[in-house]
Amino acid sequence: MTAQAFNVLRLGYRKGRDPRITTHLALVSRALGATDFLLAGDEDEGLFDNLQSVNDRFGGSMNCEHVGAGLGWLKRFSTADAGDGEPGVTVHLTMYGEPYRSVIPRIRRDRPVTVVVGGAKVPSDVFEHAHYNVAVGNQPHSEVAALALFMEAWFGEGGTERHFPEARLVIEPSARGKAVHDNERDEESEDSLT
Amino acid sequence: MTAQAFNVLRLGYRKGRDPRITTHLALVSRALGATDFLLAGDEDEGLFDNLQSVNDRFGGSMNCEHVGAGLGWLKRFSTADAGDGEPGVTVHLTMYGEPYRSVIPRIRRDRPVTVVVGGAKVPSDVFEHAHYNVAVGNQPHSEVAALALFMEAWFGEGGTERHFPEARLVIEPSARGKAVHDNERDEESEDSLT
Repeated sequence: MTAQAFNVLRLGYRKGRDPRITTHLALVSRALGATDFLLAGDEDEGLFDNLQSVNDRFGGSMNCEHVGAGLGWLKRFSTADAGDGEPGVTVHLTMYGEPYRSVIPRIRRDRPVTVVVGGAKVPSDVFEHAHYNVAVGNQPHSEVAALALFMEAWFGEGGTERHFPEARLVIEPSARGKAVHDNERDEESEDSLT
Repeated sequence: MTAQAFNVLRLGYRKGRDPRITTHLALVSRALGATDFLLAGDEDEGLFDNLQSVNDRFGGSMNCEHVGAGLGWLKRFSTADAGDGEPGVTVHLTMYGEPYRSVIPRIRRDRPVTVVVGGAKVPSDVFEHAHYNVAVGNQPHSEVAALALFMEAWFGEGGTERHFPEARLVIEPSARGKAVHDNERDEESEDSLT
C-alpha cells in the first residue's frame, strides 16, 4: 500500500479578507503532511507563490491548486473519482460534528482523503456530501487549530517531526536562540523568520 | 494543589493587521483551557468584546487583559511575581525551539504558566527570559496551530472535550447538520455559527 493522497480543501476563500488565515491553513497542511492544498473561492497567485517559496526554502513538494467554487470538485471526489476512478473519503471539520478522536479510527486509510475546512458560511451540501462531519471540540475556536489537531491525530505524534526532502534551510532545535543550517552555503546562520 | 493559572500572552499585536489571527489565538486559548488571555501591543476593545460575547453564549470565564508592550509583564512574571509573590513558568512557542513533546514532561505544574506567542518580530529578550523555548515542529506554520497542539499536549486529550460552566448555547455532537441546545429557551435549534 503506497501512501495515499491527503488533500486539504479550503472552501469559500475571499481574497481581500482571508489571506492570513488561509496562508496559515496552507502552512499547517504542508508542515503536518498534506500532499495537496486546494483553494476554492477566489483565486490568489500571490498566496500560492508564498507557499512555493516555503517549499523552495524548507523543502517538500506540497501541491497547491485552485478548484473553482469547490462543491463540484468535492462531489466528484466523494462519489465518483478521487483521481483513480474510485471515490475518496471526505472529512468535514465543523464545530457541530462528532468528536475527532472517536471518528478517526473508523475512517479507512487505503483511499485518498480530503479534509474540508469551511469558510464563513458552509453550504448544507457539504454536510451532506462529507462522509464524516468531525468536530475538534464543540466550542467556537479556529479552523487553523482544528486542522492542526485533526492532522496530528491522523498522522500520529510524528506529524510535527517530519523531515522535508530537498530543504535548503533546516532549523536545528535549540533551547536558546535561532539556529538555522543553510545547506546551500553549508553554514550555520541566524535567520529572521518567525 | 488547586488548578494553576494558565496564561497565553500574545506579543506585538497590531490592531490593523492581526485581528483575525489574534481572535483565533484567543478562542483557542479559551476552548483548550486557558484562564487568562493577555494582549501586548495595541489595545483593542472590540476584540475583547467579541471574546466576552463568546463567554456569554458558550460559557466559561476566560479573562482578557491588555498588558502594555508585554516584556515588562513577562519579566516580572518569570523572575519575580506570578501573582502570589513567586515567579511563574514561561514557555515561549517558536519554530526554533526544542520539540514540545520532549519538553512538556520537564515543566513543573505546580506554578502558574504563561505561554508566549510571538508577533512578527520577537525581541531576543523573550528567548532569554523564557524558561523554555519550545517548537511545535521546526517548520514555518502557524502560531494558532502551535498554541493548539501545545495546549492539547499539556492538558491531555480532554483539552478539546471541556464543558464550560454557565453556557447558554451547547452544541450537541452530530454526524449530520447542526444541533444546538439553547438552555435559556430550553429548546433545540439551528444556529448559523461556523
